[in-house]
Amino acid sequence: MSRDSAIGTNIRETVERLFRDFDARGGLKDVFLVACGGSLYELSGLQHLLRCESRVLRATSVTANEFAFAAPARANGSALVIALSLSGGTPEVVAAAKKARELGASVLAIVGKPSCALAESADESIVFANEASGAEMDYEQSNIAVSLRIGFELLRLADGYGHYEKAALAFGVLDRSLRGMKKQIQRRARKFGEEHKDDRFIYTVGSGPSFGAAQTLSVCIFMEMEWIHSCAIHSGELFHGPFECVNFDMPYVMFMGEGRTRPLDERARKFLTKYSDRVTLIDARELGVSILAPEVEEYFSGLYTWIAAMEYARELAFAKRHPLFERRYMGKVAY
Amino acid sequence: MSRDSAIGTNIRETVERLFRDFDARGGLKDVFLVACGGSLYELSGLQHLLRCESRVLRATSVTANEFAFAAPARANGSALVIALSLSGGTPEVVAAAKKARELGASVLAIVGKPSCALAESADESIVFANEASGAEMDYEQSNIAVSLRIGFELLRLADGYGHYEKAALAFGVLDRSLRGMKKQIQRRARKFGEEHKDDRFIYTVGSGPSFGAAQTLSVCIFMEMEWIHSCAIHSGELFHGPFECVNFDMPYVMFMGEGRTRPLDERARKFLTKYSDRVTLIDARELGVSILAPEVEEYFSGLYTWIAAMEYARELAFAKRHPLFERRYMGKVAY
Repeated sequence: MSRDSAIGTNIRETVERLFRDFDARGGLKDVFLVACGGSLYELSGLQHLLRCESRVLRATSVTANEFAFAAPARANGSALVIALSLSGGTPEVVAAAKKARELGASVLAIVGKPSCALAESADESIVFANEASGAEMDYEQSNIAVSLRIGFELLRLADGYGHYEKAALAFGVLDRSLRGMKKQIQRRARKFGEEHKDDRFIYTVGSGPSFGAAQTLSVCIFMEMEWIHSCAIHSGELFHGPFECVNFDMPYVMFMGEGRTRPLDERARKFLTKYSDRVTLIDARELGVSILAPEVEEYFSGLYTWIAAMEYARELAFAKRHPLFERRYMGKVAY
Repeated sequence: MSRDSAIGTNIRETVERLFRDFDARGGLKDVFLVACGGSLYELSGLQHLLRCESRVLRATSVTANEFAFAAPARANGSALVIALSLSGGTPEVVAAAKKARELGASVLAIVGKPSCALAESADESIVFANEASGAEMDYEQSNIAVSLRIGFELLRLADGYGHYEKAALAFGVLDRSLRGMKKQIQRRARKFGEEHKDDRFIYTVGSGPSFGAAQTLSVCIFMEMEWIHSCAIHSGELFHGPFECVNFDMPYVMFMGEGRTRPLDERARKFLTKYSDRVTLIDARELGVSILAPEVEEYFSGLYTWIAAMEYARELAFAKRHPLFERRYMGKVAY
């Protein structure tokens, strides 16, 4: 994957160094994905990739403070902890990284800036691009793309993954494809904002590669940024409880991924559109993920649906006249 | 653990047979916990136990339909799938069990009755007691107690777990302790029902050993049975988004576990009781879990808080005059 970009070379070399370091320790066996809030959900595509494809590595997501206080017994010398934080200073994530190293695990930090407490507590770190800096972002360098790329490198090294080259090609066309998609959805994002600006409650639904996007929209946008009550429901779980709350006035944002779990999303979509008049679809297939190779498109579904969801979020904030970065507690009161 | 009860002997012998069967296949390495809805959350105490204590086994919860459609690559001859279903006929769980066996994994079914499709699709099965049958239940035979006991047997066999005898003693006193607790909380359960009967939305919060109870109350009771919108929030995640929705009128049910993640619950409780006037505490310590040995009490926190929560649920249903078993979609329409 190094042919096309500096970030690709950087990730390949970093992951190789980390991986080789396990040779003397009996090999890498466990990968723990550790973060808080949006960062945790943005790692869920990496968990899905490793869980679906690796016969060698077990991937486990753990919220940072639970890792810090009740570290898994397998977080030891045969484990890699991948910790993600935009600020690089989230105290729970820094504490988890320190705990991981105490226990003998290696730590790879994915951070929004090179100099930060998390990078200092890690064995290696990779910097991702983000829009908070104001500059236009290259999506190949977004946190989700970086984490997926780490996953494909791990699969190449641990499993001799057969579709590595196809994934490499995908990263090369990602930015252009996503940029085009963003333009195409502006009108419907605006419609979403207008139609949901007075809602006190919105559910999100998704599975597999795009469940993380459903969680990010629910927790980071609706609850944290717009103070709208919400819950993210797994498409496979909808029929085991949550669907009893469906009614024609209740809004749902339905995420449709590409690949193996799409039948779960199809089933949820079918039910929701029958019993609610307020279903918004965010469908990776329709957003263009299928220009990527069929062997790997599934794993990029989360990135496509996440970027679309962020456009919907922006328009919701405008329609509500409630800026995305207004907070009442976060960073304002002691907790 | 066989000394005290028939169920203990049954579980010990069943788990031993399954475990020994992996000898010729290079040993047991992965344990997948597969179910839907409440049954999935009721297995989360087992996941917490294995994750905290086992240096050999990796425990991973997966909702049944995601397992059936996108089975983890590690679900193979070195994996045990533990599948839980009260009816024993949940189609997604039966499909997942069949898929698991196709892939070479062994399947242990935990079911509400001996003769059922899930038991027929499994290598071994264990029957748990439940209140749906009308008879008074022995809590040592409840699904959560059975799944924890399976966990302690796996730890004994795989890790030579040092606190096995203490866990065995705990199972012996469980039923009496829980029965006494249930009586003691009747008044406050009734108060909870009265105070929440008109709420359209209730959040639940918890972590570690009692996050499963927070999920069960949210999804199975509030959403499925009482048609109250809800979301279960992890205590460690509260401060990374969801707390921006807290206000003085919004009701929260706060689950407090015993053990390593209690500091996370304490922090959440402190914030919630400061910024909401409507916080209900369900605290394993106060419910009596500390009569068990300190080395193992943490793992029983989920059982104590779950049983308490079910009393609150019963009283809520009476106060709302909305029977727990009324449904509008489940089993009534096609989906």
